[in-house]
Formats: sequence, structure tokens, C-alpha cells
Amino acid sequence: MTTPTTRDECVAADRDDPLAAFRDEFDLPDGVIYLDGNSLGARPRSSADRAREVIVDEWGSGLIRSWDTAGWFNLPMTLGDKLAGIIGAGDGQVVVTDTTSVNLFKALASALRIQQDNAPRRRVLVTERDNFPTDVYIAEGMIDFVQQGYELRLIDDDLTLDDALSDDVAVVILSHVNYRTGAMFDMDAVTATAHDRGILTIWDLAHSAGAVRVDLTAAGADFAVGCTYKYLNGGPGSPAYIWVNPRHQDRFIQPLSGWWSHADPFEMETSYRPSADIRRYLCGTQAMVSLSLVDCGLDIAARADIDAVRTKSLALTDLFIALVEQRCSAHPLTLITPRDHAARGSHVSIRHPEGGAVMKALIARGVIGDYREPEVLRFGITPLYLGYADVWDAVDTLVDILDNKLWAESA
Amino acid sequence: MTTPTTRDECVAADRDDPLAAFRDEFDLPDGVIYLDGNSLGARPRSSADRAREVIVDEWGSGLIRSWDTAGWFNLPMTLGDKLAGIIGAGDGQVVVTDTTSVNLFKALASALRIQQDNAPRRRVLVTERDNFPTDVYIAEGMIDFVQQGYELRLIDDDLTLDDALSDDVAVVILSHVNYRTGAMFDMDAVTATAHDRGILTIWDLAHSAGAVRVDLTAAGADFAVGCTYKYLNGGPGSPAYIWVNPRHQDRFIQPLSGWWSHADPFEMETSYRPSADIRRYLCGTQAMVSLSLVDCGLDIAARADIDAVRTKSLALTDLFIALVEQRCSAHPLTLITPRDHAARGSHVSIRHPEGGAVMKALIARGVIGDYREPEVLRFGITPLYLGYADVWDAVDTLVDILDNKLWAESA
Repeated sequence: MTTPTTRDECVAADRDDPLAAFRDEFDLPDGVIYLDGNSLGARPRSSADRAREVIVDEWGSGLIRSWDTAGWFNLPMTLGDKLAGIIGAGDGQVVVTDTTSVNLFKALASALRIQQDNAPRRRVLVTERDNFPTDVYIAEGMIDFVQQGYELRLIDDDLTLDDALSDDVAVVILSHVNYRTGAMFDMDAVTATAHDRGILTIWDLAHSAGAVRVDLTAAGADFAVGCTYKYLNGGPGSPAYIWVNPRHQDRFIQPLSGWWSHADPFEMETSYRPSADIRRYLCGTQAMVSLSLVDCGLDIAARADIDAVRTKSLALTDLFIALVEQRCSAHPLTLITPRDHAARGSHVSIRHPEGGAVMKALIARGVIGDYREPEVLRFGITPLYLGYADVWDAVDTLVDILDNKLWAESA
Repeated sequence: MTTPTTRDECVAADRDDPLAAFRDEFDLPDGVIYLDGNSLGARPRSSADRAREVIVDEWGSGLIRSWDTAGWFNLPMTLGDKLAGIIGAGDGQVVVTDTTSVNLFKALASALRIQQDNAPRRRVLVTERDNFPTDVYIAEGMIDFVQQGYELRLIDDDLTLDDALSDDVAVVILSHVNYRTGAMFDMDAVTATAHDRGILTIWDLAHSAGAVRVDLTAAGADFAVGCTYKYLNGGPGSPAYIWVNPRHQDRFIQPLSGWWSHADPFEMETSYRPSADIRRYLCGTQAMVSLSLVDCGLDIAARADIDAVRTKSLALTDLFIALVEQRCSAHPLTLITPRDHAARGSHVSIRHPEGGAVMKALIARGVIGDYREPEVLRFGITPLYLGYADVWDAVDTLVDILDNKLWAESA
């Protein structure tokens, strides 16, 4: 489709939107244009009743029996199977559990152990300087902790990915879509290059799952982790997930060997034996109320055609970029999100020297994006509950704030 | 008080119970005597409204803004301060976060690092063979992972705690109250002995916090972890907690160094710097709905006088033991919970060769305890929502099942 050039054309595009019906499945407050679903997804309407069911019926009435009767014990796997289709994984390959940081630690521990067996001299971990900090911090924590001579190598302006992936590298940890810039890696190509060079890959899908097509199996990736509270609308801080390629499943040894990952968790054996199946990625008892709400978000995502989502996402981000460039050209804005569709995730990031103040002014006017140091305004595009007219109106507000220096009041 | 000897005396004791009013703060189904609050605590009535508030108002309407406005970002610390009073900790010393297993891993990693600096030749980790399995498994996972020549030593029938704590031991990991037997350690004495011998202590409070007086500060303990879903009634699988003695806080280095533990988590620095305060025990983003419900349970526990709770707990466990011994003497039951009050937690465990079938029959009759391999019937005593007549009626049902071999139908 051609990019709309008037608000009427936006309204018309919304009318023709094949995803329009999804909007009603979310609860969004009046007077708000929500452009931060890349940080915390909107609330599925079904979540309130689902929470009541879990709390009043399953916990209150079912009590301890609900571990069996309400399916609590299997919920990390049940949700994992539902999520699998969204990230190109198979049944029995994903569990929803713990946090992204903790799952990254598990994946990294396992990757290093595999490489110790296969290629013990590889002692470099590669990631991006601009990766989401927790990914860098977990790698640092691991290196410091094991004291086995590992070092961290950061891709940045001075070091390309290609140059970084030399033959001393054990594992590369990358976010599929960058949290700050919205830039997307070609997962297939990067994984292939890494494998050619004997390097294992860990993908962080936090900013891509549910927003762009992800196919871990086709890419032949090794490990993936991600969160469910962004484009998957699982709720604030909802549990994360971990996927491990079946070829590594038997070798997936992780030091967070809690009781839930044991081969027979109710036998109360005095020695650890990892589960033969996907449960070996689990650790301790999970928070069932929050975990249950993940289902509400996944239920929507599983019904949404990801190609339609992606098509609309690119159309909306194109529209946003075009309108900002047309209408804000007098202001010191710098687009840092790639124009190339193949390299773009589902949010648009723009630098402004007074970015923090500009975002404050936007939020005060009901246009909710967020701000990331340094100078970056982020606008998340979530096709299931955002339309063309929303984008038009958001840019209208941005123009007003910039043209009239309304941000100075927030500075 | 003297132990009641008739049901009428039980009813009278309930009438005089200073804790009786707490019963109304919990939702329990009709026809159930719930003796499994040591596994999953009952539901505080306030939890349903609190969940609705978090889900509909804070998430649905507040959206991303609630990280500030609803206090989400500080909730692990806010709840930690509320919990601190229950375990004899100070303000700013506890966070509610992650799972007990993950927190144990953090504490163990930190303890080992401290000992590496202080006493590098200490390479033995001590725990009980009969400890809750996850505590043993996490220690095993750590030993296997770091490959630094650590070994695990298990206290059992052949090795006393005193003999186990030799001068090659780095750290001892103990459950304050044992999950299976209900036996309680003297935390002060064991900690003092360990320290005399240069050994650090990690206490797992899962079966004691909220049930018995816990005073980590008085004991001078080093680390403690625990869960909130048993005697603290936080909800199924609700987030756990970790306490570190302030004398170790600066040296608390843990490899799960996620973004939430960074000194300045929103500066998005490219290198990890641990927070100077208690936040350094955090790792990744926490599940806010489940975390928020912990408050409902803590709110009740904080108002309950722990000495009154303990007095009633001992009275009810004494009553339970006395009635079982009087009325079930013809059956092959073996009490494995200590009779000595000082060594008893808040549940009673009894072996029966057909324990699994007996418990099934009890549950079918609405008397909900649980079963743990091998042969152990567990009956949790939770003074805030159980009374003397409940105990009487539960034993009545047990007598009926045993005398009439009704368990054989479940076998």
C-alpha cells in the first residue's frame, strides 16, 4: 500500500485494516496513544477474568490441589508450546519461566560448557556494546564468576560483527532487534556465519517475538531467550522464556539446577538428575498468577497472522518516519532506526538533544513513548492495537510540542 | 494451656483464641480442613481486589507509567522491608525477587567468593542429605559448574552436623525447619559453631518464616533465602526473597548480574557496576502481578504477633500428636517430628507404610495435607486460619480411614 498523506487517508486505512478487530481485545485508556508496547504491552481484556479465576478458584478453592488439577505444574511447558509457533520452534522445545536475564545465564552456561568440550581454546564472548545492558552484564557476571580466562568482546563503531567473530570466539549473544535503535539482524545469515566459524549463537528475542517473523528452526540457531511482556502482552514483568535447539538438549547443563528441572521432581532424590525433556531448563517454583496471564497475551498472538502484523508494522513505521521528516524538518531530529525494511524491527527511534524533555511533554499530552539515554525518543509500533490515525495524531502532537517549544516546560 | 481432651474443649479453646479474628482474612472452601499451608498458604481475601487493581488500573490504565507511579520499580525493596520485621532483618536488607533456588545460587556464589578471598583452601560445602532437594541440587549445580574442586558433604545418619563442620568447610546450607520432618535447627547455636570454625552460613527459611520466630540479626547469620508462598500466604509460586548480612553487603558479588542490580539501571551503561544498596541482590525484571500479591500475605503476617502464633502452633501440634497417639495406637504410625518444642517447626510428619494411599483418602474426605516420599504424611499447622476443633476433626477423619482401612480404596 502507499503511505497515507492525510488524516482522512489514515482513517480509511484503519477501516480497511485486516487486523482492526484485535484492537477490541485490549484495554487502553481514553485519551492515550500508546507507543510503548515495545516496553510494556497493553492489557488483554481477558486478563482480569483470568486472574480472578486463578486467584479465587484455583488458589482459593483448589488450594494445593491446583498444582495438578489446574495444570500449574505443566504451565511453563503448556505456554512454551503455545509460544513455540510464534518463534519458529517445535513442541516441547520452549519453557516460559524465570526472567530473561536468568534464562540468558542458563543458555550462556550451557553454550560455554558445550564449547569447553568441543573447542576448549575458544575463550571470547561476543556481544554488542549497544545490546540491552542486561545481556552485557550477565556475560560480564559469568566471566567474572567462573574465573576461567574468558573475555568479552564488544561490537561497536570500531569493530564490525564480521571482524568480531574470529576463531577464538566461543559464543555470540545478540538481540534480534536492538532495544535502542530498532535495528534488526538477519538471524539466518548471522547464525550461518557464526556456525561456519565454530561459534554458538544465543538470540535475545525480547524486541522481536510477536513483532516480526522469527524462525529459530529455519535459522538453525542454538539458544534463544526473550520476555513476554513486550509484543506478547503478558503483563508487567511477566515470566520470560528459553529455547534450546534440540540438537543441544541432551547437553544442556545449567548450574541453576533447581528441583523443577529434576528428572523426577517428586521423588525427592538426594542427587540431581536432569530431566530428559524440556523441563531441564526450569529451576525453581514459578509465580503462577503472573505466569497464567501470559496465556492471555499468547492467545491473541497465536491468532494473529504474523505476516499481516509485519506488513502493518512496516506501513506504520514508514508512515511515522515520513510524517516526522515532512513535518519536523526544522527541528534537530535524527532518525536512528534503519530505513531498510529488512533491517528494521517494530519501533522507531529518533534522537533529539532534549529528548528526555520532549518525551515528558508528549506523555503529558497522552502520547506515551519512552526515552532512553542518550537523547533517544522511542516509539513502539504494535499493529494489534495501533492504527494509522493514531500515528497521524501522535505526530501532530510531536509537531505542536516541537514547533511551540512546549518541551521546554518539562526540561 | 493444657491440651484439650474433648471436642468441646477444642471449641472452647477456639473461642478463647487471641488469633481467631485472622481466620476471616482468609478464603477457605467449605468442607475443607486445610493442613497444607506449609506447602501453599491459603488465600488472603484481599488478594482478589489487589490483583484487579494491579491488572486493570496499574497495568491497563497506568501502562508503562506504573513503573514509577504505582511503585513497581521499588516493590522488591518495599516488600523486603515489610518482610524484614518477620525474619529479624533491618530495613534495606531484604529484597523479594526471583525464586528460592535462584536466590540460593546468588547467596552460595557470594559465600564462595568471600571464602576464596578469606580462606581459599576451604573447598567443602555442607548440607543435609534430607534437606529440601533444590538446596542440594543447587549446590551440586554450582560445584559442577565452577570446576574449582569443590565437593559436597551431606549430613545424614552416619555424619553429624558437628562432625561435618570441619576446617575444610567453606559454607553450610541448612533449612531452618526441615520440609519433611518438621525438625528445627537452633539457628543461634549452629551459626555460632559455624563461625567459630570459620564457616559461612546460608539459611533457607521456607518452612520457618511466618511460622516460628526468626531472628537473623540476633543469630548473626550470613545469608538467608526463603519463599513467600507457604506461611506467608503470597500465592502459588509467589516470588522468593534473599537477605544478606550487612557486613557482607559490599562483598556480595553474584554472577546473576542483571540490569536491575546495576548502580544506575536507567543510565544504560555498557559495563556492570553493582548497586551499592540492597538492589544488588536483584537480577531481571520481576513479575509484578504475583509480586504485588505478596503484599496481601505480608500485611497479615506483619500484624500477627509471632509469639502468639508460635504458642498456638505448638498447642495445635501437641494436640495433633496427642490425639493421633491416643486414637491411632493400633496402626503402624511413626512420628518423625520432634516432640521437643525447641526442635519443632509448625508441621507434623508421620510415617505410615501406605502413606500415599492414606493421604489420598484424607484429601478425598476434605482433610488436605500432603505426602512426601518415602511414607511421610505431612500436616501443616497454620495458626492464622486453623483452630483446635479443626485438628480434632482432622484426626477424627484419620481414625475413621485407618480403623476402616478406607485408604485401601485409594491404594
